[in-house]
This record gives sequence, structure tokens and C-alpha cells, in this order.
Amino acid sequence: MVRIVENAYGKSRVRLFKVVRGLTSHEVKDWTVEMLLSGDYASCFTSGDNSSILPTDTMKNAVYSLARDTVANCIEEFALELSDYLLGASVAACSARVEIAEKKWAHIAVGGSLHPSTFQQRDSAVQRTIVANSRSGELRVVSGLRGVVLLKTANSAFEGFITDKLTTLKETSDRLFGTELTASWTYVGNAGLAGVKYEELRETIARTLLETFAKHVSLSVQHTLYAMGEAVLAAVATVEEITLKMPNRHCLLVNLEPFGQNNPNQIFVPIDEPHGSIEARIV
Amino acid sequence: MVRIVENAYGKSRVRLFKVVRGLTSHEVKDWTVEMLLSGDYASCFTSGDNSSILPTDTMKNAVYSLARDTVANCIEEFALELSDYLLGASVAACSARVEIAEKKWAHIAVGGSLHPSTFQQRDSAVQRTIVANSRSGELRVVSGLRGVVLLKTANSAFEGFITDKLTTLKETSDRLFGTELTASWTYVGNAGLAGVKYEELRETIARTLLETFAKHVSLSVQHTLYAMGEAVLAAVATVEEITLKMPNRHCLLVNLEPFGQNNPNQIFVPIDEPHGSIEARIV
Amino acid sequence: MVRIVENAYGKSRVRLFKVVRGLTSHEVKDWTVEMLLSGDYASCFTSGDNSSILPTDTMKNAVYSLARDTVANCIEEFALELSDYLLGASVAACSARVEIAEKKWAHIAVGGSLHPSTFQQRDSAVQRTIVANSRSGELRVVSGLRGVVLLKTANSAFEGFITDKLTTLKETSDRLFGTELTASWTYVGNAGLAGVKYEELRETIARTLLETFAKHVSLSVQHTLYAMGEAVLAAVATVEEITLKMPNRHCLLVNLEPFGQNNPNQIFVPIDEPHGSIEARIV
Amino acid sequence: MVRIVENAYGKSRVRLFKVVRGLTSHEVKDWTVEMLLSGDYASCFTSGDNSSILPTDTMKNAVYSLARDTVANCIEEFALELSDYLLGASVAACSARVEIAEKKWAHIAVGGSLHPSTFQQRDSAVQRTIVANSRSGELRVVSGLRGVVLLKTANSAFEGFITDKLTTLKETSDRLFGTELTASWTYVGNAGLAGVKYEELRETIARTLLETFAKHVSLSVQHTLYAMGEAVLAAVATVEEITLKMPNRHCLLVNLEPFGQNNPNQIFVPIDEPHGSIEARIV
Repeated sequence: MVRIVENAYGKSRVRLFKVVRGLTSHEVKDWTVEMLLSGDYASCFTSGDNSSILPTDTMKNAVYSLARDTVANCIEEFALELSDYLLGASVAACSARVEIAEKKWAHIAVGGSLHPSTFQQRDSAVQRTIVANSRSGELRVVSGLRGVVLLKTANSAFEGFITDKLTTLKETSDRLFGTELTASWTYVGNAGLAGVKYEELRETIARTLLETFAKHVSLSVQHTLYAMGEAVLAAVATVEEITLKMPNRHCLLVNLEPFGQNNPNQIFVPIDEPHGSIEARIV
Repeated sequence: MVRIVENAYGKSRVRLFKVVRGLTSHEVKDWTVEMLLSGDYASCFTSGDNSSILPTDTMKNAVYSLARDTVANCIEEFALELSDYLLGASVAACSARVEIAEKKWAHIAVGGSLHPSTFQQRDSAVQRTIVANSRSGELRVVSGLRGVVLLKTANSAFEGFITDKLTTLKETSDRLFGTELTASWTYVGNAGLAGVKYEELRETIARTLLETFAKHVSLSVQHTLYAMGEAVLAAVATVEEITLKMPNRHCLLVNLEPFGQNNPNQIFVPIDEPHGSIEARIV
Repeated sequence: MVRIVENAYGKSRVRLFKVVRGLTSHEVKDWTVEMLLSGDYASCFTSGDNSSILPTDTMKNAVYSLARDTVANCIEEFALELSDYLLGASVAACSARVEIAEKKWAHIAVGGSLHPSTFQQRDSAVQRTIVANSRSGELRVVSGLRGVVLLKTANSAFEGFITDKLTTLKETSDRLFGTELTASWTYVGNAGLAGVKYEELRETIARTLLETFAKHVSLSVQHTLYAMGEAVLAAVATVEEITLKMPNRHCLLVNLEPFGQNNPNQIFVPIDEPHGSIEARIV
Repeated sequence: MVRIVENAYGKSRVRLFKVVRGLTSHEVKDWTVEMLLSGDYASCFTSGDNSSILPTDTMKNAVYSLARDTVANCIEEFALELSDYLLGASVAACSARVEIAEKKWAHIAVGGSLHPSTFQQRDSAVQRTIVANSRSGELRVVSGLRGVVLLKTANSAFEGFITDKLTTLKETSDRLFGTELTASWTYVGNAGLAGVKYEELRETIARTLLETFAKHVSLSVQHTLYAMGEAVLAAVATVEEITLKMPNRHCLLVNLEPFGQNNPNQIFVPIDEPHGSIEARIV
């Protein structure tokens, strides 16, 4: 007998732009929302019975309607509110997973001061949260960032690795180390969530990751990745685990010898593919 | 005490193009490979000890060296061979995960017959396999496809769903149903793997998915998704489970009333965002 | 005195999906439209006088309204009709440029016959037209295609080129020749446009391009590009010029000597960057 | 008789990464180069005679070899040097067009001061130059930027436009005005090029564009675009013309009335398609 062992449905890429019109200055929120419900939807799949389906179009409407009245100031707070709403609106749902990605906009400087209603999207980094909320009371808030493109031009080596008949890589004590950081961290369980200052913590964590990346004397990508995760766990007690993905975006030293030139670590070709992939979850 | 609970490293986006030069005709394989090792790499992370690291550059070399001599004819066979090689080359690795994506090329027709050495990349569909191989003997072969863009212009309804104060969607007995299918199926355990004819099965499964999509009288995306999965499980005994993802790529009916025109399901705006997301794992 | 020497405005990425509901079978048109007007809009730029501006939102509406009633069967005919409409709706416009890109969908085969209302988007190729229509009566119809990914695994050489102190490329009499073809051809002037069978000609031209690519014994990309253009001009009298762009998407032979293996033109790495760029306009 | 009326060939997407290793700090240049030669290459096209072809592979090598020894500090200077080199290396070339795109990296701050050898790619903006150099002595330097994503949340109206039977857009005195700016400006002719401080001028021009965008009381996109171009021409005498492209990236006000809520310009849906397109060349 065929049966469904996992299911999820919802709406993805719901874009929300909110202008907060203060007395002297505006602020903008640029969020992209995904909502997924899982639960007891077997008859929907097997017989086309839609009576327990909250349409994904209605989920989309919920984003805009809630956004109008919410007091949530950050993606975590809004994701929590939205996940509660969705569980309320759909009896068949056992759990709701809400993911929000945020792009930050900065006020433009005019004549040295920030213009109150003009903005530039400055950064390739995307801020992110995933709230997993279940009717049984389990709640998990994961926050993170992605698209942070980083480079070390010093203090990066890679030596002492396995060599075999397929080895062509040379050991080096001075290489470029480029990566595009993805980080996601989990906040400690339900008890601690009430008063969490997500935005403050996000800034602390992002700064800790970047400063550790900068200061680390790297013997490998793994070595630096671990130092970064360790530093976050040491700095922020309300984080119980962190996962870091740090692809190694290679910059190849160009061989200029055929042209009678040396190349003392100055001229490189960055390549997108292939790339190293390194990731770990640290608690 | 901080510790690593999961880790993986390897090489991604390794592109391999192989020309099989037959007596009367050429064939081409256009594969993109990702290899990830997991295992006991703690000292590498914590102290920068690289002595147990097989460099990702060497993994890349392995793809090309093995590809030269292999008798593997399809992505599943090559992924199995490569995963075995990697476990052999790296003592610290407990498991190796190899994913290969394939783009198909078709011979061009010239004057009605296929030209032996000229090809066109025809299809947006990507064929895929993921082999998870572990030193302890566990082995899992998942095959799939993605990027199959499909549309039904008849036999698709969506009615009888929950309505509440946020409902704006209208019920319809005749809508467009567009999707970009992603499917992945798992072959039954180790015993059965030796003689599996992966390419033949892949064709059967793909044809079953498409024909079921075409013939189904759809009451919802979920309803059709389930019918497609059920049909595959019925058709191919060596598949033990299948996961289908079928985003609902909406085509909105344009309101032409302001212009004094009717629109009997003829003029639509397709939108990329937002989109419905529907997925299930069926056994 | 600052002045405007060129200007254009309009709407881009207007997506139109039309279902033609025949008695026994459906057909679908998947078009993306761009419309640009140029003309005497100086006061609009200099003083914010909008009285001569047809809003781009109205242009978008025109696409849908015209699509409902049109008898146009192909992108060229609809672009001509739309450009006429826009010149009529905007007195200040001297010229209207309409570009339409089309993605083709194919009926899915079920049990050997084509299903009447189920489709797959098969091809990466995009069909395209650009109609430049001016109030003074000048009219130019350019049609084309892009995204046609092609490969020759035989009959392609590159020898006898300039060598100098920066040369590292080796001459070869047998290389892979991969490209992503972009072609655009101009139909002869106004007189000839009335009865042009655009779709038939498009098929003839596309087939001529591909067959010539297949049959040509290529001494360089330029050599093959020219043969392809020449063949189109010979085959279709109503084409007065053709522009071909054929980037050289390199497939690099992998050096397997370090691993004690030879590589008789079998194992390659395809690269996206850098790539050769070759283009010419032929009359 | 078929003939070639325009031709160009060269190498695209040549990526160059240069590390300038100062005594106390590093700087990095992240450039992507395209080189195109045009000239008397007819025999190459018609008969496959490659004797006048400088291989594109050699052009790529020229980028790296010149980059090693150059004193050029910015993309304009290097493009000029490279275009001279290419004309020297290829007798058949009449003109060389070199385009360089630059992504900027910023030092990471650690504990309040900039880390000398750690960088983040901060900005989506791409800096660009196109140098058109011809053997006959004509020389044209165009510089620009693209990918600058901007938004005004106040001081933007759109009223008084043409209304007709297809009009559905409402007039508004207060809308969001979002765009992704592309600008390119031409420096005055040969005489003036020797001492041009391209980087200083680029900063002045970019700042002028952004400050004008911020301060302008906008009656339309055209109105603001013109003010921005006018301001640049007024501020920098060595710019003789400027072309601005400012797509209107719409943010649609969400209708919350069905949910019993008002929406005083707070909740929007940003859409990628369709978008307005507005451009002008100003001298």
C-alpha cells in the first residue's frame, strides 16, 4: 500500500516591502517570505479532497495583512507571529515552517549626512531566519546570513596534506583564501526566546565571524571555519549550535614563466568552478 | 567544550566532458560532479592538522583519471566507482557522497538522418544521481531529474478549499497548471544494486511521471503529485521511495473587463514569484 | 546648454501566455514583450511635464488587450500590430520598437500520440523578433534566435595562426567546437513585408544554420560562422542581412600524463570563462 | 556576392585578480576583461586562412603578462595600455575595443580599524570602462557604473499623463521610486586624456548622481534622470556626454481593503517584471 511519509506545501518567494514612516526619517524592510505547512493532508493527496487546505494564496495574503498591523521589528519576530497565525488558520497543519530573507538598505549620504528618504541596497549579504513552529509546542528559531564574500590575502596556508599518485596540488604557506560565507545558528529552546534581542545578537555574531576570519592564522579552511564557530559559541550564550559553510573559491596563481616573468603572489585567476566545499555543525 | 557534530568537505562543480568515439558515431557525456567526505576530521578543524586530508584538488583529479579508464556508462555507475575510490584514498573518511548531474545532448538531424559528430543541447531537464557510500557497508543510490517544465491547459481544477477572512482566491474548475518538476527516487538496498539497469529505469520512470501528469484529472497539485508518485512505485519494483517537488508556477488570468473585453481562459500572465510549493515523499 | 540627443522609454519583461483552444487540441504562446518609444519628449525630461507620456502601465495593458483580439499568429505579426498601436496611442512618439521573445512548448507524447492539452518546455532556444516602426514610414523587421547550444566533436581545426612571445596555445587539427549561437536576420524592406511567412522562414533559416554547422569542415570559428551566414543568404531571398554571434565555449583537453595515462581527445573540461567571442554581419 | 560588413572577435570574461602588496597593507584589483578586434579579416572568414589571426588565447595571456608589469592604477589606464598592445600584436586589426568591469573590495574593520589583508566584497555596483582605440588614431574612453540599486520613499510623483481607454494606472503624488542605475559617460577627445584622473572623476560623478537622485523632487523617472545627467555635465567639464538607464522597478501598493485594513503607503509588493525602461543620452 502506497503512503505519504513526508509532505509540505505552502507559498514561496512572497515579497514584502514595508516603509516605516517616522517623524524625521523613513526606514525600509525588504523581506522575502516562504511558508510551509506539514500535517495530516493524506486525503488531499489521495482523493483530491481540498477541504483541509488553506490555499497558498491565502497564506500570501496573511503576510501582507499581518505586516500592516504587526509590531514585529525583525524577521525573527515576524516569522514567529506568522507561524502562529498559520497554525491557527489551518487545523490540519501539525507544523509551520516560516523562512524570511532580508536585504538591507542604507540611507544615502548627501553632503555628509544621511538622507532621510533615499536608500541604496549596499550589500550582497542576505540576512535570514527559519522558524519551525509545531502545534505540539516545539519551537526552533534558526537565524543566519549568506552571500558574505570574504578574502584573506595573508595568513593562509595549506600544507602537510595526504599526497598520492593523483596529487598535483603544491603545498603553500601563503595563498589567497576566498570564500562566500553561509552561517546559521540555533537559539536555545523555548524558554529563552521571549526576550531575545535578535537584531543585536545578529550584529554581534556577524562581527564575531568576520573579525575571527580576519585575525585567524589559517592552516586550512576547516581550521578557520572551526575558529569562527567556536568564537560565536563563546561570545553568545543564547546560541546553542552553529553551522558554517565556507566554499573555497579558488584564486589560481598564473604561471608567467613562459613569458619570462616571475609572479610573487600578485597575479591570480579567480575561478567559480570547481570550488572546494567545507562545512561543519558545531555545538 | 565545543565540538563538531557534523562535517563534510570535498569538491563541487567539477565539470567532465567525455567523448566516446565509436566507429560510426560519437557520443558525449556532459557531467558535473560533487564529492563530499565525512568522517573523523576533528584534529583538522581544531588544530589545523592536515595529515588526514585528501586535498579537494586531488578529488578533482580522480574524476578525470577514473573517467579515462572507466567502463561505467551512466552517472549512477560512475558515482559508485568514484565513491569507492574516495573511501580508498582517504582513511579518515567514514562516508563518501557523490552527486552527478547530467545534461543530455542530441545528435543534430541533417537531411533526415542524425549527424554522427554534431550535437545540440536540447532539454532544460537535468538528470541526477546521489550515491551515499559508507565504509561500514551502507550504500544508497538516489536518482532523479530536475528542471522539467510542464503545463496542463485542461483537466485541472482547484475547489472546495478552506475560506476565511483573508481568502481572495476564487474557486475554479478549469485553470492552467504549470510546474517545474523535481523528482528523486531511491533504489532498494544493497542486494539489488548489482544488476540495476539505471538508464532503462530512468527512462521508464520519466515517461511514467510525464504520462501520468498528462492523463490525470487534477483536483489539486497534491492530487496529481501523488498520482505520479504512485504510478512510479507501481511501475518499477526496484524503487522503494520517491520524492516529488512540484512548485505551482501560477498563470494568472488577465482581467480584460476594464477594456470591454471578456477573457474565456485565453490570456494569462505567468509569474515567477510568488509560487506555490508542494512536495511529498511517498513509499 | 545641456540637451537630450537620444531617448527611449517603455515597458520591459511583459509576459504574455496565450492558450489557443482548438476543437481537438490546444496550442500555447509564451511571449515576453518589450516596447520602447522614442520621440519629442524634451519637456518631460526637463520640466517634468507628463502630458505627452503614455504610461508604461498602459503599454502593458495594450499587450493583453490586443492579444485577446489579434489574428496575429507569430511574434513578428504581433510586434507589427503592437508597434502600430503604440504610435497611434502616443502622438509624441516618432518611433516604436517592439521586441518579443518566444519560448516554444511541445505537446507531451502519451502512448505514442501527442496529448492535446499537456506541454513540456523542451528547448533552451529562444525565438526573437525586433520590429522598428517609425511614424515617417520606415519599418524594419529583424528576426532571430538565441540560446542554441551546439557542439562539433569532429571536423574542427585551428592552425596557422599568429605566434609570438605570448603564444601558449597549440595548433590542432582536431578539437571540440562548442558554441551558443545567436542569430538575427533582417527582412527586405517595406514592400516585401505584407505576405512574409515568418514562421516558415524561421524554420528554414534555423535548419540551414544547424545543417551548415554540422556539415562544415571547420578551420576556425570565423570560417564556420561565415559559411552559415552565406548559406542562409543563399537559401532565403527575403533576408537581406544576417548577424551571427558564436562565442567559442572552450572544452580543454585534460592533461592525464601526471597520472600515467594518455588522453586521445576523450576527456575534457568545459569552461564558461574565459570564452572566445566571434561575430560578423554578412550581407 | 556575399560580404562581411562588420566583424569583431576576441576574448570575453577574462578574470584578473591582482594583489598589490604594500608595506603596511594590501590592496586588491578584481577585474573582468573583454577584448575585441575588428579589421581586415575577410580571408579568415571566407577561406579559413588564419595567418592574420592573433588567437584569443594569446589575448588572454596578454592580460596577465601586462598586468604583472603595468603601472596602471585603474581600469581606464589598463584598458588603454591593453588596447595599444593588441593593435601592436595584430597587424590586421583596425581597432581594438577593451572593456573592463571592476568589483570593489573593502578592508574589513576589526576592533575599529581596517584589517590590512582581509576584505569583503561589499557593493553590488560594478565599475566599468570601455576604451575604443583605432589604428587611425581615434580614441574614445567611456566610463561608467551599473548595478546601483536605489530607492526614494518620498518626493516622487507621477501625474498628468495621457489617459485613454486602456488606462488603469492611478495618478499619485507620493509613490516609491526604485531603480537600478546604469550610467556611462564619455571623456572629451584625445587631447584631454593624458592627465585625466579617472578614479577621482569617477567618485565625483558617482556622488553627484546619487546626491541628485536623493535631493530631486521627482515628477517622473525621466525628470529625475535628466536632473542627474545635467548635474554631472555641470560638475565635470571633462565629460562630454552621459547616458543614463533607469529602469522603473515597481513597488505596488497592496490592496488591504478586502481584509478591512487601510494602507497609507506602507505595505508594498516589489516586482521584477514587468518593469519600466527609461534611458537618455545627454550632452
